[in-house]
This record gives sequence, structure tokens and C-alpha cells, in this order.
Amino acid sequence: MTATATAATTSAHFTHLKCKECGAEYEPQAIHVCEYCFGPLEVRYDISQLANTVTRQTIEAGPHSIWRYRPFLPVTSDNPIDVGTGMTPLVKANRLARRLGLKNLYIKNDAVNMPTLSFKDRVVSVALTRARELGFTTVSCASTGNLANSTAAIAAHAGLDCCVFIPADLEAGKVLGTLIYAPTVMAVQGNYDQVNRLCSEVANTHGWGFVNINLRPYYSEGSKTLGYEVIEQLGWELPDHVVAPLASGSLYTKIYKGFREFVEVGLVEDKAVRFSGAQAEGCSPIAQAFRENRDFVTPVKPNTIAKSIAIGNPADGVYALDIARKTQGQIESVTDAEIVAGIKLLAETEGIFTETAGGTTIAVLEKLVAAGKIDPEEKTVVYITGNGLKTQEAIQGCIGEPLTIEPKLASFERALERSRTLERLEWEPVLV
Amino acid sequence: MTATATAATTSAHFTHLKCKECGAEYEPQAIHVCEYCFGPLEVRYDISQLANTVTRQTIEAGPHSIWRYRPFLPVTSDNPIDVGTGMTPLVKANRLARRLGLKNLYIKNDAVNMPTLSFKDRVVSVALTRARELGFTTVSCASTGNLANSTAAIAAHAGLDCCVFIPADLEAGKVLGTLIYAPTVMAVQGNYDQVNRLCSEVANTHGWGFVNINLRPYYSEGSKTLGYEVIEQLGWELPDHVVAPLASGSLYTKIYKGFREFVEVGLVEDKAVRFSGAQAEGCSPIAQAFRENRDFVTPVKPNTIAKSIAIGNPADGVYALDIARKTQGQIESVTDAEIVAGIKLLAETEGIFTETAGGTTIAVLEKLVAAGKIDPEEKTVVYITGNGLKTQEAIQGCIGEPLTIEPKLASFERALERSRTLERLEWEPVLV
Repeated sequence: MTATATAATTSAHFTHLKCKECGAEYEPQAIHVCEYCFGPLEVRYDISQLANTVTRQTIEAGPHSIWRYRPFLPVTSDNPIDVGTGMTPLVKANRLARRLGLKNLYIKNDAVNMPTLSFKDRVVSVALTRARELGFTTVSCASTGNLANSTAAIAAHAGLDCCVFIPADLEAGKVLGTLIYAPTVMAVQGNYDQVNRLCSEVANTHGWGFVNINLRPYYSEGSKTLGYEVIEQLGWELPDHVVAPLASGSLYTKIYKGFREFVEVGLVEDKAVRFSGAQAEGCSPIAQAFRENRDFVTPVKPNTIAKSIAIGNPADGVYALDIARKTQGQIESVTDAEIVAGIKLLAETEGIFTETAGGTTIAVLEKLVAAGKIDPEEKTVVYITGNGLKTQEAIQGCIGEPLTIEPKLASFERALERSRTLERLEWEPVLV
Repeated sequence: MTATATAATTSAHFTHLKCKECGAEYEPQAIHVCEYCFGPLEVRYDISQLANTVTRQTIEAGPHSIWRYRPFLPVTSDNPIDVGTGMTPLVKANRLARRLGLKNLYIKNDAVNMPTLSFKDRVVSVALTRARELGFTTVSCASTGNLANSTAAIAAHAGLDCCVFIPADLEAGKVLGTLIYAPTVMAVQGNYDQVNRLCSEVANTHGWGFVNINLRPYYSEGSKTLGYEVIEQLGWELPDHVVAPLASGSLYTKIYKGFREFVEVGLVEDKAVRFSGAQAEGCSPIAQAFRENRDFVTPVKPNTIAKSIAIGNPADGVYALDIARKTQGQIESVTDAEIVAGIKLLAETEGIFTETAGGTTIAVLEKLVAAGKIDPEEKTVVYITGNGLKTQEAIQGCIGEPLTIEPKLASFERALERSRTLERLEWEPVLV
């Protein structure tokens, strides 16, 4: 039950943990904070060994999942937990591009990631594989919903005991989409930041593997695969611009890390990539700091429909700020109404149904284009991180109603005529 | 807008439509019923040409979607509508197998099919590609929910106009999961069989491409990919036994057709495969006919929570009966309570959250094992065809509740103790 250090085997290329602030180094155990400066710990790799072993061909010959990038992930076992996670479609979004006036737009669609339809399946697959290696039999997490779904599902598949912590006011689909896997679910009467603080205490008193606390250095590395896959799916090329949602800031910084690693080991040619980030106005501490040119993030109390990214005290906020600035990217926020419009726009143009976080990212994309902050020619990749079926409340009442008819041809014809008239009234200029 | 015959190009291997009853042959147009005997029409291929062109290697070199099997699908265009549909995981279900006493169990998981999380994305991708080839600009369907989701989403991506017909009493998730793509939605006050009859009339009066009516011969061929993929994912081998849900009976018969085609062109070695089918007791016309040894199916009025397979008058029922009998398979039905238990069992053991149709299939699997109708050694593949997030109503009240706590360690410890006591009461024998 307790975590013991596991040395990297010959097939693993990660070597140690290193503090992002003071550079102190640690054995790859279940720890996440520097003993000296309280900075976050990050996994380090033997880059020259990676450069000597990994080629485009060895990757392409791997499984059709995140595990094709196993040498870049912090696990030692040869049979990681693989439930088909990753290698989600990179869709050339021509219809959305045309609507926005762009020419080279791609959607990285993790709304259909496996098994639980969000990018969290990536980080959890890595974290639970590492948890097993470190000897944990109970896994846990502090979650805004998607992480709880993913941890509960993959723990069920792997036969690990599971206890998840969520804010008590989550969307029904996210609660039910966790309970179905029969973990213990603690609904905490408070916001995510309070849930997170409680979990830090529990991690200290119980010998559990918290994927996003004591296992966080391993967990967060899973997001790098969102960078690797885009490079591979673009034909081993970097994009010009990425737009990603910002919650803790971890996803965003890890996509950046993934890009840099592939450049360093020679898998892709280097070029400048602009990193833009998206927040909901009701929880936009990083966007506020960006706007006000601060290099610190002031915590806020979340109030937005985009609950999955409603983190008022983002752990990696300052690192996200740094990347946005040094890559000439932007960090923008949008209102809840704009988020709903973003969800609808993506569905109507591309047939992709995303949750509120995805609506936020699309709405920010739209805003950046309108402000001239994205060049129409730029090869732009937008990260869609979760599925709309989990946040149905957000769009109820905003997407119209079916036309109710009797099972008779005449009833259908009348309804069709009515709908066409409505459409004309809505879309065509009225001639007087 | 009207459909005109499109001759197969050199890269296409389908040749014509043929009546399954009287053998009359037709040009590959938008027709589905034989003019002479009213039998259903089916697509035919040049099998010897296929055998000469297609190898395991040409397939493996294709895209990671159903379109790697393009020579076996009834389309002529070189750029079919590919939104990543197909190549869903074939999961070795060790934990579920152990629970049931099986040794060789696999789940074909279309609960995570792309883009709309059901097997219908396969048939719709094929139907809309063919619709475009035949010149249709408006597509339509009669649906129990999943088909409407898929038709609306893929039509949005392809830029086709779309009008879907559903029974008015569908699950909220399925209605909302259609409306979000902004098609015209007709909610018909009646059951699926009434919806279907109305659509047949509309197909005759409007020049629309109904995926499961006038385009049905093309549409239904998409389900063959569920057979092809299983063969490829088993390492180019046939399974011993398959268990699939039965609604119209089309999916089941097309998996069989897919297996036979791969044998005929020499891609896989022939062997006996048993075909078992699953229905909900509240709509089990095929299971009733099987039990009573009839070779005709008597229509029933559906009354079950498994709405996606609630077809009282199944178009391909007699063909399904024939396959079950000649392969020594079984057709069984289960109660709504057993369906819910099946959903939970799959989630808890494998981390896969399926809708009511999948619960039906798992419950029938369990019943067949208990009755000794599946040998523990048989390589058994169970088809899971849709996602549980779309039928949340079915399990509400049956999966427990979160433990509500304050954001304090003491509150958590009390709740944990309570939950462990409850677990002990539930699972351990009481000693008196």
C-alpha cells in the first residue's frame, strides 16, 4: 500500500523528478512538492538516450493509443493499462474555418477519447499505470467531473479500489458517469479548490494514490500525448498556433513540453508555435493576470457554467502565463452565453458535440480571429477536451425543440411548412 | 435532388443490388424493395475481383477507420466521409469473464465509436457517402435515437441538409444529442414502427435520401465492418461465438455477412461461428419466434427501457432467425431489471458504460452462460453498440448516491467509516 521507489528499467527513459523552481532532484516516488522550496516536481528523461532509440518508424509501429509514445511517459512496466486511450481524430475543420474566415483550422477531438470521452483518460491511464508500479491498491482524485469519470472507469478495468472527490454541485451526467463504475464518491460541499485542499490532507493521512496530488508529476505527463499526436497527425510537423483551455494550466504547459521534447530528440523540425489559452469569464484568473501584465495569478471564486475548467487557484497558472508571453500567444476569456454559442457553432459546422470547456475554447478562437490575433493562413489547432453529453444542463433551452407531429403525412407536411417559414423569418431579410 | 444510377468505378467492387427473396437484380440506385416480390434488396460484389485485389496488408495499410475496408463497401468515391468512424477497441474482458466463469471473452466497444458514440456512425458514414454520390442534398432517417444523433452529426460535418424523425417519447440525451447539430427534428406521437411507416410515405413524396429506407441497402452494409474489425483485431481469426443485440436484425445479419465475405475472399480461415442474439423482454418478437420454433415473426407493441432496440416489426427478423438456427446460436430476452444489472456489471468490471441495448446484450450473455449455452473455452465476442450517457434515465435511482460531506477531514473520515460499514453489511455473511 505504501509507495516505494521504483528505479527505471532499461526500457524506461525517465530518470528522476526535478523541482521546476529550485532544481532539486528526487527519486521517482509518489511525491509532487519540493521539500526545500515547495515548488512543483516534474519528470525528467534521458533525452540523448531517447534520441538514440526512438524514431518516427518505431512510434508508427506502436499501438494505436497513447502508449505508442511509451518511451516519453514515466512508466516502467511493459504492459501499461491500455484501454484504447488517445489517437483521437485531428479533424480538418473546413466548414468551421470558412465560417470564421480561417484557412488552416484543425480540431483535436478528445470529446471522443476512450474510455470516458475526455482528455483526462490520457493522464489517468498514465497515473494508474504508475500507481500500480508504486504499489498502490487504492486510487483517488480531486475532480471537477471528467477526472472522476476517468479514474473510476479505468480503476474498474484495472481492478483497483477507487474513491473520488467532487464538488457537490456538479452536472448530473458527470456524477452518474462516475457512480456507474461503483467507486466511493465523496460529494464535497464546496468548490473545486476546497475539494483539492481536503484531498491534500487525505493524501497525507491515507496511503492512497491521488492521481492529481501525490501522483501529479506522472499524471500530468499524460497530457504531452496531445502534443505528440498533433505533430504525428500533421505529418510530423508542428502547427503555427494552438488554442487550448486553461483550468490548472497543466494541459497547456504539457502540450508545450511535448512539442519541445519532440524537437529536442529530432523527431520534428523546430519552428515558432504560438500558444493561446481559453478561460471562462466566471473563472479567469490566468486571463486576468495576462491582461494586467502580472506574473502572478490572484485566486478567484468560480462562477461559470464551464465547471470542468472552474479552478480558481490554478496550480500551473504562472507557467501558462510564461508560455503565452514567450510564444506571442494570447489568453482570453468569454462569457457563459458565448460558451453556449461556441458549443452550438462547433456542432452545426463540424458535427462535434463538446462540453462547456470546448465551447469556451471555440468562443475564444472566434474572439481571437475577430480581434485579428490569429492569421487566417496560420495552421491552427484547437483542443476540444470533453463531450457535450456530460453537460446537457448548459444547453437546455438554447437549442430549440423538436416539432411534434402525428404519425400522418399531412401532419408532417404542415410542420415542415411551418419550420421553413420560421427559417425564412430568421435568416432572410424581410422585404417591406 | 433525384437519385440517378451511378455505375461502379474501377476502384469500386460492388456491382448491383439483388433481391434477397427472388434474386431479381437492379442497378445500384436509391431503391430498397424488389418490384416483383417486395423482398429487400442487398448489395452484391465481384468477389473474385476482391480476392485478387485485397490482402491483409492492403487493409492494414489503410486508414484507422471503417474506410480501410472500402473495397467491401458500396461507394464509388475515393474520398468518402471519414470522421474517424470504426476501429473501436476489442477489449479482452478478463474481469467480466472471471465474474461469469468464462475464459475467452472480448467486448467490441462501439460505445466509444466516433463521432456520436454508437455503431450507427458506421452505417451513416456509408449511407451519406452514397447519398452524396447519388446526388441527394437532403438526408433523413427514422430513428430510435442513436441513428438520429449520427445522421445529424455527420450531415453537419458534410454540409448536407438534414431532417430526422424520432418517436416523441425518446430519452432526453438522445433528443438533445440530435438538436445540437441543428437539423429539423420531427417528434412523432407514436412508436418506432409508426415513425418508420410515416417515413416510407415521406420518402415517396420528397426527394430525400432516407438512410434506412431508400438508401437501406447501402446503409446496412456499414455494419459488416463490425465483423471485419473483429477478425482483424483477433489477429485475422474468426471467433467461436458472437452475442449481438437484435432490433431490426440488420446488425446481426450483416456481421454474419462480413464474416462470410472475408472467408470467401480468403482473408480468414473458415470455421463454425455461433451467432446468439439479445432482445429486451418488452420487445422480443424475434426471441419469441425462436423459442416457439416459428420461421415467421409476429409483430409486437414495444414496452421496454431499451428504446434503441425497441422495434416491434423487425425488417430482418426472419433472416436473423435463420442465422441463429443454422449456426447453433441462441436468441434470448431479458427483463428491464436484468438490463439495468447488465449495464452495472459491465461498468464495474470493465469500466465500460453502455446504454440499455448494451445492458441487454450483457444480461443475455449472463443468461446464456448460466444455462450452459456458452462454453467457457469458446472465444466469445460481445457487441456493445451504444453509450450510457445517452440513456441516463434508465439507471437513475439504481446506482446509489454520492456521500455528501463538508470540506473537512473529520467529515470525510466519518463518511468513509459509514461507507465501509455499509459495504460490510452488504457483502459479508452476518455471523449470529
